[in-house]
Amino acid sequence: MARGMALADEKPQGPQEITPQGVDFSRWYIDTIKKAELMDYAPVRGCIVFKPDGYELWEACQRGLDVRFKATGHRNAYFPTLIPESFFQKEKEHVEGFNPELPWVTEAGGEKLEERLGLRPTSETMIGHMYAQWIKSYRDLPVLINQWANMFRWEKRTLPFLRTTEFLWQEGHTAHATEAEAREETMRMLGVYADFVEHDLAIPVWQGQKTPSERFAGAVDTYSIEAMMKDGKAVQAGTSHYLGTNFAQGFGIQFLDRDNTLKHVHTTSWGASTRLLGCVVMVHGDDRGLALPPKVAPRQVVMIPVGPPRLREKVMGPFDALYARLRDAGVRVFTDTRQEQSVGWKFNEYEMRGIPLRLELGPRDVDAGTALAVRRDTGEKAPISLDGAVEHVQGLLGEIQANMYAKALAFRTEHEFRAETLGDLAALEERRGFYLGGWCGDDACERRIREETGATARNIPFTPPDRMKACVACGRPATATVWYARTY
Amino acid sequence: MARGMALADEKPQGPQEITPQGVDFSRWYIDTIKKAELMDYAPVRGCIVFKPDGYELWEACQRGLDVRFKATGHRNAYFPTLIPESFFQKEKEHVEGFNPELPWVTEAGGEKLEERLGLRPTSETMIGHMYAQWIKSYRDLPVLINQWANMFRWEKRTLPFLRTTEFLWQEGHTAHATEAEAREETMRMLGVYADFVEHDLAIPVWQGQKTPSERFAGAVDTYSIEAMMKDGKAVQAGTSHYLGTNFAQGFGIQFLDRDNTLKHVHTTSWGASTRLLGCVVMVHGDDRGLALPPKVAPRQVVMIPVGPPRLREKVMGPFDALYARLRDAGVRVFTDTRQEQSVGWKFNEYEMRGIPLRLELGPRDVDAGTALAVRRDTGEKAPISLDGAVEHVQGLLGEIQANMYAKALAFRTEHEFRAETLGDLAALEERRGFYLGGWCGDDACERRIREETGATARNIPFTPPDRMKACVACGRPATATVWYARTY
Repeated sequence: MARGMALADEKPQGPQEITPQGVDFSRWYIDTIKKAELMDYAPVRGCIVFKPDGYELWEACQRGLDVRFKATGHRNAYFPTLIPESFFQKEKEHVEGFNPELPWVTEAGGEKLEERLGLRPTSETMIGHMYAQWIKSYRDLPVLINQWANMFRWEKRTLPFLRTTEFLWQEGHTAHATEAEAREETMRMLGVYADFVEHDLAIPVWQGQKTPSERFAGAVDTYSIEAMMKDGKAVQAGTSHYLGTNFAQGFGIQFLDRDNTLKHVHTTSWGASTRLLGCVVMVHGDDRGLALPPKVAPRQVVMIPVGPPRLREKVMGPFDALYARLRDAGVRVFTDTRQEQSVGWKFNEYEMRGIPLRLELGPRDVDAGTALAVRRDTGEKAPISLDGAVEHVQGLLGEIQANMYAKALAFRTEHEFRAETLGDLAALEERRGFYLGGWCGDDACERRIREETGATARNIPFTPPDRMKACVACGRPATATVWYARTY
Repeated sequence: MARGMALADEKPQGPQEITPQGVDFSRWYIDTIKKAELMDYAPVRGCIVFKPDGYELWEACQRGLDVRFKATGHRNAYFPTLIPESFFQKEKEHVEGFNPELPWVTEAGGEKLEERLGLRPTSETMIGHMYAQWIKSYRDLPVLINQWANMFRWEKRTLPFLRTTEFLWQEGHTAHATEAEAREETMRMLGVYADFVEHDLAIPVWQGQKTPSERFAGAVDTYSIEAMMKDGKAVQAGTSHYLGTNFAQGFGIQFLDRDNTLKHVHTTSWGASTRLLGCVVMVHGDDRGLALPPKVAPRQVVMIPVGPPRLREKVMGPFDALYARLRDAGVRVFTDTRQEQSVGWKFNEYEMRGIPLRLELGPRDVDAGTALAVRRDTGEKAPISLDGAVEHVQGLLGEIQANMYAKALAFRTEHEFRAETLGDLAALEERRGFYLGGWCGDDACERRIREETGATARNIPFTPPDRMKACVACGRPATATVWYARTY
């Protein structure tokens, strides 16, 4: 019996080529994203190719974010990639932060350029220059613009999706008349990121403020959302910066206010990148491979006919009808009806690729008026009636989405600890996770923590589960409670 | 009376800052795209900024093309921007065609690179390299991938949207087992471009084949769609190339065929760019400014309350209700209810920005249960009943779309001529347009035509309105009938 054979094929361990997470999480990650065809290595240092399955996941992220940006009044635009060297000099901290990472165009059109052009690592400078031309009066404010673009940072250590020489992102750049408005925008967009990542990517995040040493180069305050991967490491899944008047002063972005005086605008910037793909993989994946949240899964449901070939004709009518109904209802469904591949191979294949739900239809299902639904998140199998299949499938996809978030939240909670001392924090070596610790506010203590435990200050959460009283490093009274964790 | 005043403001000439087309078409073009805020000049040679109104028009083009690419089986992916110098050397004609235009990254991360990296002018080389890793067997074919990306060509003469150092485009790259399949794909995608440009952009095009001298560097055959601007010049609005096995040989893209022999794949590539925005402006615009086809207009309908301020309260209830109904029906509608701007100013402003339809609502309209609809394409004004407003507006948008195409087609037909001799073609100096002429197939004749008349061979149309018998330049028997025109 085909289904029985298929079940026998479904070994609890994943496809052979994927290293188990428990053996080597980093190898599991690379094995998974390569085997699931999200990416491939490119023949340029630190660059990857986003293969269709990876790029479509990014397109889903773009859709989820873009609709939220537009709902909060932002419009998209596009600015040049090449930035004159002199632009970077106009904001002192910015140039120090980014110059070491820049690729430079020095020749073009067969001639040596008079001024080097940097490939944008972020666009505050170019956009600041343009805003200085566009903004004249308080009537021109606020300016609320977002850009979807490719970025370049010549990173020393690279890791697919998380840190690559070229990556894709969006960067919002806004200008406001007052500090209060700009700070409100900074927090609003942090909230937008948290909303998208929690609701669509099913990943719980901690919202908080970065410590000064982790601030964006040129920012007054930097905020982030931090997510915990399954190896307990942290990934910054989005950042939002209040830039004060730093770039406005560097680029002369001034406006005539209602009171007839000339003032500098207050700017913000905020970004999320293809790093989100790495988060989805490392938060939800398991030894079987990828697991994609239904809201962003490019393909939500795979339909596979089962049973002996001689009874196939009986199955295909109801099979095709069910496919059409699901598709017409807006479910992102596809079929694999190939006869040269075993059903067992197909089950493994689409589990490895993270398809949230599988529907099997065989002759006995047809007789019973049902299809067998198999969830990627739990492995649960249950018949659903063909009559109400659309509603059942939509309901199951909703349940899978909610369960994936709940599982990720439970995992995170299990891997959150408190550290009173450096010794407590050193436990991170074996007991991976996020550590809540006090901080006196001294850069030297943060440095010492990093050097002695490998943990970095992720952020100062707005609503920490606890308030820590003493600095983990020096024991002096804490002025802030910080999430410490290792990162990539 | 407000509406009367407004009408008095609506002078037949356009906003003062826009040079009339008849005075200087090039200045009209720049004036229009700047005043309508489609773009601004960037502080990098030959680069522009796509401002939100311009970028949203590009997003509309992306949507219209992307849905067609997906319907024909293509998937999106993303490949690196930086291409090693050695890659360009692998296809002889390709390197000669593109090397002079390349910007080169020679330094990165504080060090001089061992090999220069070119900023992609097109991605046949990078994608060819990757396809060589991915394609092993006939089972892997066809590969149907598209990329949306930024491109770089260090052009000597630049013109916003039409030719800039950096531009945005899509490039399809496909690999096939046989020449026949690859040629079919090449023609299919040319047809997709024609379908989009004619139906969505309301621009008639001539589909045809490029002459050898105008072929893409590395192609066996290049096809194009050519559109006529309002100054009679031609713009290539999309191209599709059959690349034969040229790139497959250069990059070693081979597959084991069903007959168990190793063969080179046949590849195609096809692209359309932000140049399309220039086409929309120069085909539909007039002395009042932009005119956008409803299908791609980011904003289709502007609603403006009219009448004396003291009666405004009476108007705003029905006004808001109408707005909500149109918006809920999916019409891209917006309002301008500002009191500090005159209605006359608003009328001019949104005509200049090319909004296809204006709805005015005043106290007398409310009494009559109507709104006044004013078409951008014809200037026609007619009351529509509030009851059936959604259907009326949708109907009008459809009529405007059809009429804009019809007008563009009529204009093109009026500016198509036949040339028997070089003398006939020289008339192009005063009588701008497309000239149908015979060609003997000799490059020298094509060169002579270009040098003596400034006209280039646009393409050899598949269905020319006439078959020309003799070569325009030498008088020998024609082997092809060619569209000649000036271009930018």
